[in-house]
Amino acid sequence: MTFPTKTTSPLDPEELALIDAWWRAANYLSVGQIYLLDNPLLRRPLQPEDIKPRLLGHWGTTPGLNLIYAHLNRVIRQGELSAIYVTGPGHGGPGIVANTYLEGTYSEVYPRVGRDEEGLRRLFRQFSFPGGIPSHVAPETPGSINEGGELGYSLMHAYGAAFDNPDLLVACVIGDGEAESGPLAASWHSNKFLDPVHDGAVLPILHLNGYKIANPTILARIPEDELRSLMEGYGHTPYFVGGDDPEQVHQDLAGVLDEVVAEIRRIQDAAREGGETRRGKWPMIVLRTPKGWTGPGEVDGVAVEGTWRSHQVPLSGVHDNPEHLLQLERWLRSYRPGELFDEHGALNPEIAALAPVGEQRMSAHPATNGGSILIPLDLPDFRDYAVPVSSPATTSHEATRVLGSYLRDVIRANPDNFRLMGPDETASNRLSAVFEDTDRVWQGEIFSSDEDLAPTGRVMEVLSEHLCQGWLEGYLLTGRHGLFSSYEAFIYIVDSMVNQHAKWLKVSRGISWRAPVASLNYLLTSHVWRQDHNGFSHQDPGFIDHLVNKKAEIVRVYLPADANTLLSVADHCLRSRDYINLIVAGKQPGLSYLSMEEAVRHATRGIGIWDWAGTERLALERGEEATLPDVVLACAGDIPTLETLAAADLLRQHLPTLKVRVVNVVDLMRLQSEKEHPHGLSDAGFDAIFTPDRPVVFAYHGYPSLIHRLTYRRRNHANIHVRGFREEGTTTTPFDMVMLNELDRFSLVMEVIDRVPGLQGAVVSLRQEMEDNRLRARAYTRQHGEDDPEISGWSWPHATGEK
Amino acid sequence: MTFPTKTTSPLDPEELALIDAWWRAANYLSVGQIYLLDNPLLRRPLQPEDIKPRLLGHWGTTPGLNLIYAHLNRVIRQGELSAIYVTGPGHGGPGIVANTYLEGTYSEVYPRVGRDEEGLRRLFRQFSFPGGIPSHVAPETPGSINEGGELGYSLMHAYGAAFDNPDLLVACVIGDGEAESGPLAASWHSNKFLDPVHDGAVLPILHLNGYKIANPTILARIPEDELRSLMEGYGHTPYFVGGDDPEQVHQDLAGVLDEVVAEIRRIQDAAREGGETRRGKWPMIVLRTPKGWTGPGEVDGVAVEGTWRSHQVPLSGVHDNPEHLLQLERWLRSYRPGELFDEHGALNPEIAALAPVGEQRMSAHPATNGGSILIPLDLPDFRDYAVPVSSPATTSHEATRVLGSYLRDVIRANPDNFRLMGPDETASNRLSAVFEDTDRVWQGEIFSSDEDLAPTGRVMEVLSEHLCQGWLEGYLLTGRHGLFSSYEAFIYIVDSMVNQHAKWLKVSRGISWRAPVASLNYLLTSHVWRQDHNGFSHQDPGFIDHLVNKKAEIVRVYLPADANTLLSVADHCLRSRDYINLIVAGKQPGLSYLSMEEAVRHATRGIGIWDWAGTERLALERGEEATLPDVVLACAGDIPTLETLAAADLLRQHLPTLKVRVVNVVDLMRLQSEKEHPHGLSDAGFDAIFTPDRPVVFAYHGYPSLIHRLTYRRRNHANIHVRGFREEGTTTTPFDMVMLNELDRFSLVMEVIDRVPGLQGAVVSLRQEMEDNRLRARAYTRQHGEDDPEISGWSWPHATGEK
Repeated sequence: MTFPTKTTSPLDPEELALIDAWWRAANYLSVGQIYLLDNPLLRRPLQPEDIKPRLLGHWGTTPGLNLIYAHLNRVIRQGELSAIYVTGPGHGGPGIVANTYLEGTYSEVYPRVGRDEEGLRRLFRQFSFPGGIPSHVAPETPGSINEGGELGYSLMHAYGAAFDNPDLLVACVIGDGEAESGPLAASWHSNKFLDPVHDGAVLPILHLNGYKIANPTILARIPEDELRSLMEGYGHTPYFVGGDDPEQVHQDLAGVLDEVVAEIRRIQDAAREGGETRRGKWPMIVLRTPKGWTGPGEVDGVAVEGTWRSHQVPLSGVHDNPEHLLQLERWLRSYRPGELFDEHGALNPEIAALAPVGEQRMSAHPATNGGSILIPLDLPDFRDYAVPVSSPATTSHEATRVLGSYLRDVIRANPDNFRLMGPDETASNRLSAVFEDTDRVWQGEIFSSDEDLAPTGRVMEVLSEHLCQGWLEGYLLTGRHGLFSSYEAFIYIVDSMVNQHAKWLKVSRGISWRAPVASLNYLLTSHVWRQDHNGFSHQDPGFIDHLVNKKAEIVRVYLPADANTLLSVADHCLRSRDYINLIVAGKQPGLSYLSMEEAVRHATRGIGIWDWAGTERLALERGEEATLPDVVLACAGDIPTLETLAAADLLRQHLPTLKVRVVNVVDLMRLQSEKEHPHGLSDAGFDAIFTPDRPVVFAYHGYPSLIHRLTYRRRNHANIHVRGFREEGTTTTPFDMVMLNELDRFSLVMEVIDRVPGLQGAVVSLRQEMEDNRLRARAYTRQHGEDDPEISGWSWPHATGEK
Repeated sequence: MTFPTKTTSPLDPEELALIDAWWRAANYLSVGQIYLLDNPLLRRPLQPEDIKPRLLGHWGTTPGLNLIYAHLNRVIRQGELSAIYVTGPGHGGPGIVANTYLEGTYSEVYPRVGRDEEGLRRLFRQFSFPGGIPSHVAPETPGSINEGGELGYSLMHAYGAAFDNPDLLVACVIGDGEAESGPLAASWHSNKFLDPVHDGAVLPILHLNGYKIANPTILARIPEDELRSLMEGYGHTPYFVGGDDPEQVHQDLAGVLDEVVAEIRRIQDAAREGGETRRGKWPMIVLRTPKGWTGPGEVDGVAVEGTWRSHQVPLSGVHDNPEHLLQLERWLRSYRPGELFDEHGALNPEIAALAPVGEQRMSAHPATNGGSILIPLDLPDFRDYAVPVSSPATTSHEATRVLGSYLRDVIRANPDNFRLMGPDETASNRLSAVFEDTDRVWQGEIFSSDEDLAPTGRVMEVLSEHLCQGWLEGYLLTGRHGLFSSYEAFIYIVDSMVNQHAKWLKVSRGISWRAPVASLNYLLTSHVWRQDHNGFSHQDPGFIDHLVNKKAEIVRVYLPADANTLLSVADHCLRSRDYINLIVAGKQPGLSYLSMEEAVRHATRGIGIWDWAGTERLALERGEEATLPDVVLACAGDIPTLETLAAADLLRQHLPTLKVRVVNVVDLMRLQSEKEHPHGLSDAGFDAIFTPDRPVVFAYHGYPSLIHRLTYRRRNHANIHVRGFREEGTTTTPFDMVMLNELDRFSLVMEVIDRVPGLQGAVVSLRQEMEDNRLRARAYTRQHGEDDPEISGWSWPHATGEK
């Protein structure tokens, strides 16, 4: 295989020697981190006691990461670039830590790891060591916005960072292992969403070291013409560099980097000054170097360098095998540490001078500590978008459509600081008001018949939840704001990404120099109860359960029951920091219950007794003494709220003396104990709402088990009976859906009859009537193909003629 | 844009007319399903009462699906092919239902939908109708193995179906929306894993109709040379067909299909007979036709055909708007139903003759009802792989390595019926014994230095959990068996796919003609407690929680604590049908507790009292009366079991009169009530094990909340105190990990002290000793970088010198 490059020797001998020295220094520090407890400068021959007891880390990818880092520094200084480094193969943690240490940043944020021998000792010791730092490019690593522990997200994070950062160059190293993953494979098309005028540039560097843990990689083993076609097919101009002779690779990589930086400038200039509107073929680099390059060539007679065997720790017998120990020492000395560090352990100043200065260092770039440059959103007053609600449950609104107008003005007021992501569902989710002010970003061909497409815009739509999530994460972690709106059932697609982001936030919160970033906000709509055009595959409310496993300090879940409550919740979420906020709200017309003022109060409390909907007040008005209600009807979510109110109304009509309390939950975490979640109600507060001992019939949006899980330590838990989604669904009518899952008003009334002591025997006929209603509803639906408005319709005056 | 094809008019006029008639018939039936309640043959002018009250479905993709179906039938008959149809845009349900009806299969499996006017009426009415069929290509649809509700999995399912089916051609239609998703983007490289000798062929047909719900698609708007490069980069030879003149498209598509079928044969012949070992450039088709083709061109003056506006139901005003109703009637009549169906509503025999016969019909192909051709695995006796355990907790084994030998022989005995999937982790997960008998499938270049790679093999490794999952699903649904081994934390990547598979199984169980398929088996290892080389990103046990939300009849979760139990569980799972089985087991050396015989008994019961580990027996031996224990120590998972046994041992040493019961749980679903899960213990059975009122300290592998969730209805629930993963992790030692999460033996003992009434005051010093042990362990680890074997080591004789 040949590696044709256009330039030959852009580095003069001195530059070449220095860049190679940086590379050797980074490699030396990487190997040191994996192996050494002590003796960091090899002042004495290595002894077994210098070696860590547990040898953990990933050497294989590291020399490549170090090589690229060194060369990027050269072009950053040369071109005065503003650049950051996204490390796809984040397992190569020791390499990135090494470079940030060489740049000085590491000692600035962690002063105890100084730029001297003791600092080196600590740098080595702490790596993958109990009480030290993890083995990956984690939040602890300055300059990182991508851990790269779970693979696949580097390139989408890179694009997220580049959006609305016109001066930024995001270099993104993609491992050939990672490149096999679905999310990464989809990411290449992100270039169709990058505006060369207002966004920065992404430089993908596909690093083919040929192997994963135990296997070759696909892209390293397809013919080079196929790989070239693939990259061209993705819309890139690929530049190939590779080899195993350091000197030649240094020259070739330097030459290619000069070229691609110039090419990026050309594309940007053409768009920014030349008015070019055709999408440019952005450059990318294919770098092919041996896995574990410069490490042990053979160990115990078996090839290691250039094979999968160098993936983790190539010499594992150093504790007991003197030959291995000697080989390790030779390996470390091959980097000639004496030329790199002075007698005190400080980096040779000539080499240190290769690093850019201050915030130009990729490890100190403010974008990689997004919270430090976060500009709060300029938010319009959400109250201005309120729908009028003079009495509850009499008028209908599409909650997300109302929110759309608010979001339109959020976008208007924050033209380069907020993005709305969605998998082709912004209009379907009825947020189309945003298109009054902005467009969907689209760098592809635009036809005259298209609507709301433009090369620049605030809305990003692509049929990949992975891309929406990854772009947004990159955007947030570099100090901006956003909202991801999705069909409820398909947000599971990003479960694993959410895990990783939650872990990132959790760890970041414990790192003093990392400033809080804007929360990751989800709006889930087209939810389980209203999948009218689809069916069972689109019916799944369990993402809430997934989130609730995350650290309590990170997660917030909101189920606003109407439009005004949604507005209040959305405003709250957009102001918050370092959380994952989940909002579930319907897009179909639904009753409004609360005026704006009431909604703010209700959303702020997160849970409340809806006095007007229950009958406790009526009993008081009748002059009865204040006692506990006979039953509590609780609800969370728009459809469960509707069914609960209709059930309460039925109870009022049929059992006027039954004291019914209606409780609505907006903030699901209020149900948990205050010991477990910062939003949790105290036990006394919980008892005050749910009573210590009365039956509670809880109509919940999702899987019933979650309500039990959140409340199982509460005094009254044994009396809480939850209805929710029981994994029964298909393409059917809205009321048939709640019937299938026994969440309908009739089932709720029957549950009340069965649970309130003494009631069951007394109202046999009412229970039968409810059963009959279910049968009638079902028969009507089966016959007519739609719900019987006489049975499933409900609004306040319909029932009582009064408020 | 031009659509160059090499042939001009392969269809003679009669063939052309007939194939067009089939297409019109399928389109007619599709529109009928979306709109009509009655009047299926348009015997009278359409009236509003002929129209369904709710208009649901997706027209946009349907005519393209119908076109391809018709043309595939032609080449199936012509070439006597064995072919199936995988519908990526599964939203186009009415189209596939229409074709299966035209083929006669639909009426065979659903006799009430006959091939006459009444049958047509029922066919139309049932679609997206309460009590009818869903709107997608669901399990109810004959010939389907891919619902296509959640997009992204068609091509991986297609490959899964083709593996080990050398005579099968899997035509896979990929929508241009779906093509944007990550899983689909990764799927293209599946051709590097397809053996042309022993596997069948996959023909990807990328259908560019240009639009998603409300947006153009990426692949429809990149220049054709980019698209060509992309497909060539994926290793395909693309054939382009397209246009909007039916006659020309018929001719072109027929010509291209003739060519690609011949090309597939050439590749197969070259490999099978010519000994060709280089990977062939398999053909694929890019078909570009208008979205909603043949539907209303304009509605209310706005373009619909050929735009995103035809995505769902193009004419929505038919109930109230006479013009719309008329337009619908014109649309339906444009297919000239009078030429297609006879006066009784039966398909014109000349057109019907276009369908292949019997099992050659794609809708009746046995592979699409995999259970019907399922050959049970020939399983070796797992007892032959047992490790000797003469006394519990004295010897160590790597459980997955032991399993590896068993799996090797499963593979040996079932050379074309079983596959092992893994994201590059088979060796890392210590299943390498399988490579004694087989290889990893690899159609890329193979170097002499490579190990265990071959063009054919039973192990499939790719760094994409999506591909592993999708291939396996396709393989299982077409009647074969398999196991997916993965790192525990990253199996979340396929959460959403698991949802969809669970839904498929749930629905299939209710369809009489669908025979049970082999279960989907997961082996999760490299689990949360032993992520030695990695860290927090790799620590997450919550996939169990995800699964438990699925229908109880589908899901089984096993946590074998040692090697022999794992063998027994694995054998059981491989024999089961229609389940999703999850096995979590460690790969690191761990103590063995049970002999093979004991393990079989224990695994069969799923839960049991480990008499030898508790002190109840000792009390009896001392002559005490049989009473309830003072405390129950329960455990599930290998590491929690170790810590629990060590805690029991500490208690025995320090509190010899305390009656301790040790309970180990293998089958997690035993904890749930028998009312909720078929494996659930009765309340009496639960009480017999966990007592009605004694404290239970439960050490659990995953998030503690799950144990509460499974047991909250049990009498003794208030006394169950669970320790598990609390989302605390990093790169550290094994014992430090359990310490971080307070799952260690010392914490368990302290919990016992705190929970057993009367104990706390009595043993202040013991509690302090446990605290001190924790501090000592922590200090040792922080200083030495490894666990103190004096503190964290444990085995039975170490504690008591006896069994």
